[in-house]
Amino acid sequence: MIVDVLIAGAGGAGYPAAFRLDKAGLKVVMADPKGELGGNCLYQGCVPSKTLRELAHLYVRAKKLLGFNETISFEKAQDHKDFVQETRFKQHKQELAESSVEFYKGEVEIIDNHHAVIKDEKGDVQVEYKYLILATGSEPFKPKFPGSEYCITSDDLYKYKTSIRKLPKEMVIIGGGYIALETASIMNALGTKVHVLVRSDRVLRGLDSRLVSSLLSMLDKNIDIRFNSPVIEVQKIGDKDEYKVIYSEKSEKKEISADLVMLATGRRPVYPKGTEKLGLAIGKTGIMVDETIVTSVKNIYAPGDVNGRSMFFHSAVRQSLVSAHNILAGTPIDYMDFQSVPISVFTIPSIAYVGILPEEAKRRGIDIIEASYPLSKDSRAQMYDEAEGEVRLFFERGSLRIIGGWIIGIDAPTMINEIGTAVANGLTARQMANYADQHPMSNESISYAARSIF
Amino acid sequence: MIVDVLIAGAGGAGYPAAFRLDKAGLKVVMADPKGELGGNCLYQGCVPSKTLRELAHLYVRAKKLLGFNETISFEKAQDHKDFVQETRFKQHKQELAESSVEFYKGEVEIIDNHHAVIKDEKGDVQVEYKYLILATGSEPFKPKFPGSEYCITSDDLYKYKTSIRKLPKEMVIIGGGYIALETASIMNALGTKVHVLVRSDRVLRGLDSRLVSSLLSMLDKNIDIRFNSPVIEVQKIGDKDEYKVIYSEKSEKKEISADLVMLATGRRPVYPKGTEKLGLAIGKTGIMVDETIVTSVKNIYAPGDVNGRSMFFHSAVRQSLVSAHNILAGTPIDYMDFQSVPISVFTIPSIAYVGILPEEAKRRGIDIIEASYPLSKDSRAQMYDEAEGEVRLFFERGSLRIIGGWIIGIDAPTMINEIGTAVANGLTARQMANYADQHPMSNESISYAARSIF
Amino acid sequence: MIVDVLIAGAGGAGYPAAFRLDKAGLKVVMADPKGELGGNCLYQGCVPSKTLRELAHLYVRAKKLLGFNETISFEKAQDHKDFVQETRFKQHKQELAESSVEFYKGEVEIIDNHHAVIKDEKGDVQVEYKYLILATGSEPFKPKFPGSEYCITSDDLYKYKTSIRKLPKEMVIIGGGYIALETASIMNALGTKVHVLVRSDRVLRGLDSRLVSSLLSMLDKNIDIRFNSPVIEVQKIGDKDEYKVIYSEKSEKKEISADLVMLATGRRPVYPKGTEKLGLAIGKTGIMVDETIVTSVKNIYAPGDVNGRSMFFHSAVRQSLVSAHNILAGTPIDYMDFQSVPISVFTIPSIAYVGILPEEAKRRGIDIIEASYPLSKDSRAQMYDEAEGEVRLFFERGSLRIIGGWIIGIDAPTMINEIGTAVANGLTARQMANYADQHPMSNESISYAARSIF
Amino acid sequence: MIVDVLIAGAGGAGYPAAFRLDKAGLKVVMADPKGELGGNCLYQGCVPSKTLRELAHLYVRAKKLLGFNETISFEKAQDHKDFVQETRFKQHKQELAESSVEFYKGEVEIIDNHHAVIKDEKGDVQVEYKYLILATGSEPFKPKFPGSEYCITSDDLYKYKTSIRKLPKEMVIIGGGYIALETASIMNALGTKVHVLVRSDRVLRGLDSRLVSSLLSMLDKNIDIRFNSPVIEVQKIGDKDEYKVIYSEKSEKKEISADLVMLATGRRPVYPKGTEKLGLAIGKTGIMVDETIVTSVKNIYAPGDVNGRSMFFHSAVRQSLVSAHNILAGTPIDYMDFQSVPISVFTIPSIAYVGILPEEAKRRGIDIIEASYPLSKDSRAQMYDEAEGEVRLFFERGSLRIIGGWIIGIDAPTMINEIGTAVANGLTARQMANYADQHPMSNESISYAARSIF
Repeated sequence: MIVDVLIAGAGGAGYPAAFRLDKAGLKVVMADPKGELGGNCLYQGCVPSKTLRELAHLYVRAKKLLGFNETISFEKAQDHKDFVQETRFKQHKQELAESSVEFYKGEVEIIDNHHAVIKDEKGDVQVEYKYLILATGSEPFKPKFPGSEYCITSDDLYKYKTSIRKLPKEMVIIGGGYIALETASIMNALGTKVHVLVRSDRVLRGLDSRLVSSLLSMLDKNIDIRFNSPVIEVQKIGDKDEYKVIYSEKSEKKEISADLVMLATGRRPVYPKGTEKLGLAIGKTGIMVDETIVTSVKNIYAPGDVNGRSMFFHSAVRQSLVSAHNILAGTPIDYMDFQSVPISVFTIPSIAYVGILPEEAKRRGIDIIEASYPLSKDSRAQMYDEAEGEVRLFFERGSLRIIGGWIIGIDAPTMINEIGTAVANGLTARQMANYADQHPMSNESISYAARSIF
Repeated sequence: MIVDVLIAGAGGAGYPAAFRLDKAGLKVVMADPKGELGGNCLYQGCVPSKTLRELAHLYVRAKKLLGFNETISFEKAQDHKDFVQETRFKQHKQELAESSVEFYKGEVEIIDNHHAVIKDEKGDVQVEYKYLILATGSEPFKPKFPGSEYCITSDDLYKYKTSIRKLPKEMVIIGGGYIALETASIMNALGTKVHVLVRSDRVLRGLDSRLVSSLLSMLDKNIDIRFNSPVIEVQKIGDKDEYKVIYSEKSEKKEISADLVMLATGRRPVYPKGTEKLGLAIGKTGIMVDETIVTSVKNIYAPGDVNGRSMFFHSAVRQSLVSAHNILAGTPIDYMDFQSVPISVFTIPSIAYVGILPEEAKRRGIDIIEASYPLSKDSRAQMYDEAEGEVRLFFERGSLRIIGGWIIGIDAPTMINEIGTAVANGLTARQMANYADQHPMSNESISYAARSIF
Repeated sequence: MIVDVLIAGAGGAGYPAAFRLDKAGLKVVMADPKGELGGNCLYQGCVPSKTLRELAHLYVRAKKLLGFNETISFEKAQDHKDFVQETRFKQHKQELAESSVEFYKGEVEIIDNHHAVIKDEKGDVQVEYKYLILATGSEPFKPKFPGSEYCITSDDLYKYKTSIRKLPKEMVIIGGGYIALETASIMNALGTKVHVLVRSDRVLRGLDSRLVSSLLSMLDKNIDIRFNSPVIEVQKIGDKDEYKVIYSEKSEKKEISADLVMLATGRRPVYPKGTEKLGLAIGKTGIMVDETIVTSVKNIYAPGDVNGRSMFFHSAVRQSLVSAHNILAGTPIDYMDFQSVPISVFTIPSIAYVGILPEEAKRRGIDIIEASYPLSKDSRAQMYDEAEGEVRLFFERGSLRIIGGWIIGIDAPTMINEIGTAVANGLTARQMANYADQHPMSNESISYAARSIF
Repeated sequence: MIVDVLIAGAGGAGYPAAFRLDKAGLKVVMADPKGELGGNCLYQGCVPSKTLRELAHLYVRAKKLLGFNETISFEKAQDHKDFVQETRFKQHKQELAESSVEFYKGEVEIIDNHHAVIKDEKGDVQVEYKYLILATGSEPFKPKFPGSEYCITSDDLYKYKTSIRKLPKEMVIIGGGYIALETASIMNALGTKVHVLVRSDRVLRGLDSRLVSSLLSMLDKNIDIRFNSPVIEVQKIGDKDEYKVIYSEKSEKKEISADLVMLATGRRPVYPKGTEKLGLAIGKTGIMVDETIVTSVKNIYAPGDVNGRSMFFHSAVRQSLVSAHNILAGTPIDYMDFQSVPISVFTIPSIAYVGILPEEAKRRGIDIIEASYPLSKDSRAQMYDEAEGEVRLFFERGSLRIIGGWIIGIDAPTMINEIGTAVANGLTARQMANYADQHPMSNESISYAARSIF
């Protein structure tokens, strides 16, 4: 088969390019071993985890605000999660059917920079391509230690039709990244006793430390986070799901019992077989790409997790489109703005941030003016009795253009997009102050914060 | 008392100016008959009604998504509403205490355009002022007809410490504005059988008719809306709260029984006593002001409901600040952008819009390009099983700058602020398409819509 | 020959698309009867006329500011004009040589919407194309009346290697458009006695009348403009270049003698032979296109003068690129912003404008705030002793976004681009006021004007 | 006298604030020893030097393009310069007369941070002030060495009614800053043989070295610039204006004869007598101010040269207004964007730049994309036969927002404002590429440059 573009991977980094290129009349073939569009995000990542998170949050609110005493069913929650996933699988199938994109279930094996084989169920498909989009994503990194085989990853918990449908009583999560904290928040809200073992003295490494401290101070106190506690061994007790997790704290061995142990120790890129034949430059986080998402080989693009620069679904989608536009134009015309991608941590309460935060500003020598508004004064936060947290904006001194912002607390992941739109477009504090945010939504805190410096 | 600025009214149109002018060192006196800051919005308007609305929405979701069978307590809901109001009253008291603004409980009576009397509980206070800010707001318009004295208004239902604390079984709402529809939605969700009597053949007059139709098609079918049904009389049955509402439909008299009848037939401005002595130009909607919020008399400003141009709390707050800035500068320097104020109708589901919509664009001869995304394809809408509605954006053909947008469905009132920020700042479709909205929030629909035209 | 894109016309509407499509790897063939790139603009339009205009202006300034008494040589001025044209012909040849675009000298004759013939000097070339770009431009409209054959057009005066190399003593220009006025200004400055016969009571029809009046009041009083003076006949006197122009004024026949008579009565689109076979929609000004520059036939684009929407070289260039981008993307992705194209009238002094001017704003119901600064106060205008005119900005009331502006006087055609950039991007008055324009350049008047409303 | 604001200095940093504060109704007193508004810029700085520069440039062009042989009269040029200055003095007098600002000719002597004395010709005036604006500007720094008393400064050459009205035959300029280079260019064009002695191995220190090299390569080769040539002594020869300038080069003594020697060795701030009593923080370049232009003492502002952050008239004007706005608001509301101030070097040809240039970007760790267009291809540059130089834009990689730009060559100081407007407002490369700059103006090079990356 001779095609214009071969796309390896049908997740957020793959299918948007496929449909865009197809719309322009190019011949596109796409392959994914899952046999479904949507990638990890849909199959075992953000969609299922956030579905559970929303149900857990709803449960917490119903207890607190309506005084309800009923108990949530974990099994039904998982059923609803599966239902949402199914809905989206169908939706993508429909989109595929309406396009001329050819789709295979199977892995791509690279032969050279114009040839590959798709290992489809029904046999090998030889492909000659002009352009290759490597959109093979990432997978959880599973360190090896005694008993690590007893540990699940977030993939096991959230995947479509997962077998984990009984609420664990006590759970140990190993790791301190956002997946660890989100899962801890969700399972704690659903009724599990959760312990988090963090190797070092901080969670969410790389993130501004003031923001991290604020988040930690607001998490439910029932979540037991233990810092400087590297895991040593996991032991299975008996033949049921009972485990002992042994870790070290101040040079002493300690242990916790649990009926579920989850490893959340980061993700790493997945490269298709034969990738080494392409001679691509590979960097610390994955395949090296510039802002046009091209690799070191001119006809090969690598959007999404596989380049490791910004491992989020919405970032992958935009990178995928950047790849498509640049392939169409035959010369760079679209550029990824990695700096303006909003990021949320979907704990309960959640945080969200975008752009350049104070520690990064300091590193770069950018002098900033901070403007903030406490959610304790926000009507909507008060209505939900979740009046903790803040909106905080960072403006470049002089130009007063916004370079970053964060939200801690209610509605953070939706509100961050108003701030992100401002950051991406270099709006000034005055432009933000002049806008009259809808009352009584927490977005008011954004204009109130901006107004505080005028 | 000789002051720089006298402010009549301590609502959203009054107190922001008071605090701003005070911060700049001006002597400010403010008076309000309620004796509290926050105005109608807080005392009997948006804050209490939206508190009930959020509880009602939470209740609907808990039943549908968690399968809960418990029933919400209307009395407890009203208690929570009162609690939120109290919290805000205290907050405003604190702000007042931290300022040098002098505040009186009482009405302002105008003497001339530099003198007034505050009718305080403890006696009259004579005031000589340089500038006057008329921020006296609005009140429900109550038409007179036989039995109209039996009807409550939204003020009675939502006011602080209201006596309406028992859920009505059957309720008639007379009117077709946003207060009528919101109250219908809330009470219906809480368990009341609601009938809405609309005089003409449409609700939400003045609003784009496509948007209105979409909203109507999505409201709960249990809400009984009767068009072309002007009310004739309300009769009280016996000595309990039982009423018969008689109305006309196709020249026939019809009737409905109800234990609560509410008039929601619009609001009109409130002018302080003696206003006529100021010689202000008064227009169709209220005191005439231009975009600097000055009236026809140069030292008098009239922000908020009293001018009737944009009767929303967040609009009043911004107008109040515009007044303050222009007083400080001694010459016009700040201008209200009435066109970029976001507006939401807090039904269940809700809608929100901002800027110029298609019917208005047509009237003005602006050629537009529409871009939309259906919420049926949105992850978050699917998670909440509220996958109806859409995001729709309107771009000026040629410049591709966004001039308006609407959202029908999930999270409309918070998401509208991302679109509003774009409208207020003239962002282009491409700027919106290039932004990667946070996944899996419904805001994704905004960039997806923008991307649909590239 | 089978090609991706056939381009008829190698002017500003043609060659930019050719080079852009070629860069993306498409096969492009372009043909033009001139055998040169650059179109009318370069061959006989803006480049040669503005070259003469700059020399004329320099001459005026040297006399006035340096007190010089020497006389400019019209012949040398024409030589310099030819030299500038030659330089650009060579430059375009070089660009062509560096591309893979195939170029023919000859007209294109359309066969159907996928086939055409290029009538090259060396024989016919059959072309099968996917896309056609009609970029055949316009030509002067020459009305017929007794003696009209004695009249030249601007093409004759400005064309490369023109035979008009002796300065006329007395010249009649028939018409009141910008070509008439510019030529009058230039020839007057060079030493010719110029008469302009305008059919109606105004020049520059369609342009805001306040702007036209200001320009007229500033033109050199030696230029003799006669309104309501339609031409009746041109008679040749003897066998030398002597003419009598007979026209009507208030029902009386009048006459003027001249040794050169120029018709400047508008331009009209040029369609290639066979265009009627394409079934294109043709409107009042030319081939109908929308903002994506596509015609009513989906694989045919018509940028530039041939559509008559904005007959300026810089507009054609951008329209050409819009066509190219939309062809590449296979779907509309680029849109022409006709409203933000700056326009200059290169009289001495000149005017320039962009966006929506007051009369147009009134027609559309847009309420505006005007802000202006007189050039009598501008340092640079004073240095050149050309301290007449003004900068005037038009802001939408409320948003304070700039929607248009004009400059009358010094440096108008360069300064307009600062205003145009603001208009095209919807900048606000405050953004313009905050910018510190370079002193002592007339651009200062732009920020000074914006500051006048704060 | 009790006033709201005392302003010391009536230059660009002083009078704009005076008029703005007066318009708002504050009582303002302003004093300046010159007894005129306009400061150094008008009295002996940019206005007179640029007037001469424009005449010199006109002279060069008339010779080259019109073939004129007459010679410019230096005396008449100086007369014209004086005339321009007079015009502006009168204009400012008129503005003063139309305001209520009280103006004194005399120095301000500080007593404490609420009191000062104006040393007026007619006697001392005691002033009690709420706010003080220190706008006392700067003066040339004159190093001492044997014979330095024989050297003039630029003040002597350009000042109103200067006695230097005879064109020097041979002139030595000591220094390598912009005043040195501009004066060298102007005097060379007027007919003087100019030598420039530069202490170090580079001119225009602090400026991006690529830009400096480009400028040097384009300056008239008749200008004799000697690097690494510190001056040792200036000797007067006889009793006429004849001098010998002795300097060191590679440890050898060398000499040049000249009839005029000018020191152009930088400028330094001027503080009023008694400034030390205010306890202001003083930094390396002058009085320390932040972006609100406030000093370390809360009621004292120091706009313009006296703070040394951005020693240009247009910057001072904006800083002056920032001071006024912040005084009016009683709290910081306006902020100076030092980074977006355009800067020009008015040599022949000139350069201009704005924002962050490559060397600075590298220091800050900002990754940039460069886009440029050579003026050799620009129509207007070709018309003037000045087709050297370039437009170069610097975009932040990813966001593609413009952070800086430069122009070398024709029309640089006016064109820079289009780029500066883009920089100040964070426009993207695509926004700049989509704008259709007026043809045939050199501004076209700006959009052409931006388009080169799409």
